[in-house]
Amino acid sequence: MVTEQDPPAAEESASLPVLLVDWGTTNRRVYLVERGRILREHDDTRGVLSIDRAGWETAISEISRAFEDVEAQDVKAQDVKARFTLMAGMVGSNRGLAEAPYVPCPVGLDDLVKNVLWVRAGSVAIVPGVSFLDPPHADVMRGEEVQVLGAIEQGSLPSDCLVCHPGTHNKWIRIESGRIASFRTVMTGELFNLLRKHSILSDLFDGEPADDGAFAAGVDHAIANSDLISELFRVRARVLLGASARKEAASYVSGLLIGSDVRIGLGAEETDAATDVVYVLGSASLTQLYVAAISRTGRRAVGLDDKAAFVAGMSRIAERLR
Amino acid sequence: MVTEQDPPAAEESASLPVLLVDWGTTNRRVYLVERGRILREHDDTRGVLSIDRAGWETAISEISRAFEDVEAQDVKAQDVKARFTLMAGMVGSNRGLAEAPYVPCPVGLDDLVKNVLWVRAGSVAIVPGVSFLDPPHADVMRGEEVQVLGAIEQGSLPSDCLVCHPGTHNKWIRIESGRIASFRTVMTGELFNLLRKHSILSDLFDGEPADDGAFAAGVDHAIANSDLISELFRVRARVLLGASARKEAASYVSGLLIGSDVRIGLGAEETDAATDVVYVLGSASLTQLYVAAISRTGRRAVGLDDKAAFVAGMSRIAERLR
Repeated sequence: MVTEQDPPAAEESASLPVLLVDWGTTNRRVYLVERGRILREHDDTRGVLSIDRAGWETAISEISRAFEDVEAQDVKAQDVKARFTLMAGMVGSNRGLAEAPYVPCPVGLDDLVKNVLWVRAGSVAIVPGVSFLDPPHADVMRGEEVQVLGAIEQGSLPSDCLVCHPGTHNKWIRIESGRIASFRTVMTGELFNLLRKHSILSDLFDGEPADDGAFAAGVDHAIANSDLISELFRVRARVLLGASARKEAASYVSGLLIGSDVRIGLGAEETDAATDVVYVLGSASLTQLYVAAISRTGRRAVGLDDKAAFVAGMSRIAERLR
Repeated sequence: MVTEQDPPAAEESASLPVLLVDWGTTNRRVYLVERGRILREHDDTRGVLSIDRAGWETAISEISRAFEDVEAQDVKAQDVKARFTLMAGMVGSNRGLAEAPYVPCPVGLDDLVKNVLWVRAGSVAIVPGVSFLDPPHADVMRGEEVQVLGAIEQGSLPSDCLVCHPGTHNKWIRIESGRIASFRTVMTGELFNLLRKHSILSDLFDGEPADDGAFAAGVDHAIANSDLISELFRVRARVLLGASARKEAASYVSGLLIGSDVRIGLGAEETDAATDVVYVLGSASLTQLYVAAISRTGRRAVGLDDKAAFVAGMSRIAERLR
C-alpha cells in the first residue's frame, strides 16, 4: 500500500489545513494546523514500536479520524478534512511506515523539503532524518531536526549556536549559518529508563526526579568526575548502609546522568568553549532539569518550547511543498 | 523456620565433608568438599531472585539432596550426608534466606568467621558480606570477600595487592596486610546485560563478546575518553550508516564497558599508581576479557581461578567454625 510518488500538483487547493504528526518510538502527537496556527491537537501512545507491519493502514487512518468526532467549535467542519498529512520522527525509520533516508549534514530546512518521502501521492508524506558521519564520529536523528530548524525559522534560535535537545536520546546540535552542522547523541533518557525499570536500583526510584538539592549534588558529582557506572552503585550502597535517604535517589541518579551528559556535550570537540549560551529545546520537565544542570557549569541556558518549534518547522516544510 | 542459634559444639564429628554454596542473584553453585578437596559439584539457576519467601525450605533441602541420587564412585555413601551447609553470597542479603549484616572494612577471614549467621543450629550457616563506608565512598559486597580472602589463604594472592573481581558488579578490591581494606563497585556486567536485553542496541548483539580487534578498539576508546553514554549510541549510528559491521558491535560494546571500568578502577584514589600488577579473579571468560583490557593500559594482569578461591575460603571458614 506504500508507494513512492511525486508530490501533488501545485494547483491543488492550498487553503485547507495540514495534519502534522510528531511520531516517535513510544508516542504520537498530531496537530491540525492552518497557516502555522494550531487548531486542534491530539496525543496518544501509539508509538512506532506499538505498530506491526500490517497495522500501518489503521494507524494512518486513525490520524485523519482523530478530529472527526470532536464537536466543531472554532473549526469549520470541512477544515477537519486536512489537505495532507506530514509526518516526522521514527515513523520514517526502518521500523516505521516507510524508510526516508537520512540527509547528511550540513542540513537546512530546504534540504529536508527536497528529500521529503511521499508515501501516498498528495496525501501522506514523511520528513527525512539527518545523519552526521565524520569518522570516528557517527550519528543520526529523526524528529529533532524539524524542531531545531523550526525554532530558527521562528526566530527563537540564532543562526549560529549550540542546542541541547533532551529526550530518550539527548542531542547536542551545532547550528552554523542556520543549518545543522554536526551533532552528537547521549543515551541519557534511555539509560535512566533502563535503570528505573530493570536494574538493581529499580526499587530506589520513588516518584519523578526534581530540580532539588539531590539533583544538584548528582550534577556536581558528574561534572567533576567521570565515574558514572561506579557512582550509580554507590547510590544503592549508601541507602543500604544508612548514609543517604532513599527518597533522594531518583533525583540524585537523574542529576548524575544529566550531569554526565552535560560534561560530555559541553566538553566535546564540536562545541566551542567561547559559547556562553546554550539553548535547550525539549519537553517542559526535561528542559527545566537540563537548564538547571547547564547553569551549574557557569554557562547560561535558555529553555525553548519544543511543540511550538515542531509546528513552526513542519508548517514551513508543508508550505514549501505546495 | 529460620532461627539464629549458637554454633554446634566442638565435640561434633569433624570428619564428614561440608556443603559449600555460592548462592548468587541468578545462579547457585554447590560443592561437596572434604578437607579443601572438591568431591562433587552441582550448578543450577536457582538464584536468590527465583525463590519466594515460602520457597526457602524446599530450596535448602534441594542442596543436601543434590548429590543423593548420584551413584557413589569416589565418595562413600555416608560422606554425602554432609556435616553442615555453609553458604555465601546474596543468600545473606535482605532478599535471601536470612540477612547476615555486613562486616565493615578492614575485614580478614577471622572477621567473617566471627560474624557467621547460623540459621539452623549446627546445620546451616551464612557467611556475612562486607561493607566499606568512608563518605562519599560507600560500597557493599556479598560473595566476593570469600574468594579474595580464600585466594590469600591459598597463597595465590599476596597480602598487599589490588584485585579486580569481574561479574554482574565488578569489584576493585584493595588488599592490605591480608585484609580487605577498601573497595569500589562498577556496574559493568549489569549495564552490559541491560543494553543487550532492553535497549535500542539490543538487535546489534549477535553472540558473545570476544577478545578480538573490536574489543581492543572499544577498550582503547574508553581508556582515552570518558564519553561512554555517547559512544554507545555511535555504535548503532555507525552500523546504520554503513561505517561499521554489525557483527563487531557486541565485542566493541563489551570493550567500551570494560575499558571504562578499568579506567575508573585504575584511576581511583584508592588504587596506587605504583601497583604494576593487578590480579583478576572471576569466571574464566570474564577474567580473560579483563586481563586483556588491563594489559592495554601497560599494567600486568594475572588471572586467577574463582572456583578454587571460593572453595579455599569457605573450607577455611568451615574449619574455624569447628
